[in-house]
Amino acid sequence: MDRAALEAWAAPRRARIDALLLERFSDAWPPRFQQACRYPVTTGGKRMRPLLTLAAVEALGQEAGPAALHAAAAVELIHTYSLVHDDLPAMDDDDERRGRPTVHRAYDEATAILVGDALLTEAFSTLTAPAVPAPLQGRLVAELATAAGHRGMVGGQAADVGLGGPVDDLDTLLALHRGKTGALLRVSVRLGGWVAGATDAQLAALTTTGESIGLAFQLADDILDADEDAGDDGPPSVVKLLGPDETSRRAQALADQALSAAASLPHPDALLALARFTVERRI
Amino acid sequence: MDRAALEAWAAPRRARIDALLLERFSDAWPPRFQQACRYPVTTGGKRMRPLLTLAAVEALGQEAGPAALHAAAAVELIHTYSLVHDDLPAMDDDDERRGRPTVHRAYDEATAILVGDALLTEAFSTLTAPAVPAPLQGRLVAELATAAGHRGMVGGQAADVGLGGPVDDLDTLLALHRGKTGALLRVSVRLGGWVAGATDAQLAALTTTGESIGLAFQLADDILDADEDAGDDGPPSVVKLLGPDETSRRAQALADQALSAAASLPHPDALLALARFTVERRI
Repeated sequence: MDRAALEAWAAPRRARIDALLLERFSDAWPPRFQQACRYPVTTGGKRMRPLLTLAAVEALGQEAGPAALHAAAAVELIHTYSLVHDDLPAMDDDDERRGRPTVHRAYDEATAILVGDALLTEAFSTLTAPAVPAPLQGRLVAELATAAGHRGMVGGQAADVGLGGPVDDLDTLLALHRGKTGALLRVSVRLGGWVAGATDAQLAALTTTGESIGLAFQLADDILDADEDAGDDGPPSVVKLLGPDETSRRAQALADQALSAAASLPHPDALLALARFTVERRI
Repeated sequence: MDRAALEAWAAPRRARIDALLLERFSDAWPPRFQQACRYPVTTGGKRMRPLLTLAAVEALGQEAGPAALHAAAAVELIHTYSLVHDDLPAMDDDDERRGRPTVHRAYDEATAILVGDALLTEAFSTLTAPAVPAPLQGRLVAELATAAGHRGMVGGQAADVGLGGPVDDLDTLLALHRGKTGALLRVSVRLGGWVAGATDAQLAALTTTGESIGLAFQLADDILDADEDAGDDGPPSVVKLLGPDETSRRAQALADQALSAAASLPHPDALLALARFTVERRI
């Protein structure tokens, strides 16, 4: 799939994800809180993570039906809540995201805290909706909670705000990345595998794909940042520790690993394209 | 059960809940974040909600085993996270809780936001631990997420911070209470019912008990606040809208309803005592 074919694949799926995300808050109360909860889920995000979930299902030769869609939406809810809380004044203090005021600027800080809490909670509600087969629900929740919580994303964020002390060695920095961005990308792909009833070997291939995408994505990010800011200030980065050439080499090796693991699956076209453009930061 | 008998019943159960709560964060990283996550779960809380879960299981004639304990701990994690976020400067801006600095005072605001997120996420991880039978996991998660999220607790908090406009009529105020405090008390009891395999009639009785405790508890709180502050300022309260006599009458009627529903169960002693002392705010 080239860029145009991937976009043609992604567009209708994005529309279904967006519709489900809105629908999950149709019974939010009070009305102004409903509006606030829907605000960050309608910012025109790329939906990279939920698309990975759907692509993983399709890579195993299945159609991405309601269960896949609910798993995908759950992953996006976790990603979106983490942005809402990350943007808060006490965290990154960002006024804008995707060209619009952040939630605490459009509303206020208390609302942004509560919106994040509501989105996070709703991820688990979505995974246990009737559309998801009952025997799968516990497994999906367990995987997503582990990836999103203190063993994964929140742990990585805690390291990122300095709770682990200065991050000046490669092992700590990679552990931070594995938590902060890697865990959710990894689980996005794995949830698709569980929904599609993957064999152990298929789940292992999907896991390798997700993990390698996650780290390659982060290395690509570090390379972009290093191009923008040649100085020594700014956050710790792999480029500062390894240099741009070695970082590029590692990113390429990880991307190759992701693609070769994905290529072992029965119908990998969308997953391969998504992995490639994700790592290249072109989606 | 009198007060002393209830305390003798509660003490060993509290110790088991506390131990499980600590254990859930044994693999938190980085170390200072682990310490921060454990800080609010070791404040010597009364553990009213998880004790209600265990009492509901025992009311159906079963021992409160590992599944019951995990359900109880999950409920307490939701309660604790909500306190950590409620205490933040942008919310209630409280410096102390139970005689100790709040999380954002003992650490900082970013840490308190992340600790709340970690506790909330861990509630769902706990409900899907191996100790909980797989066929039950999805049901417990669905119930707790509905009670904790925008359809329940978070929705009530949103109304409480003013997102529903001024709360000056009884229906809105009761809806606020049903969300903010009622939903979690209700689900605390219901989760025990699910764990113990309650019949429909038993689950209905447990639900009535939980709902009535929740609202009676809140009315008792309003009466206490009104005694402390006779003025018109302060938050809206049922006492202001109905007067102290009618509020007391309603609180008593709700307490009677809770007790008579609980009394219909096979072994209601602990649940009855817990309901009575909870409503009387003596536990």
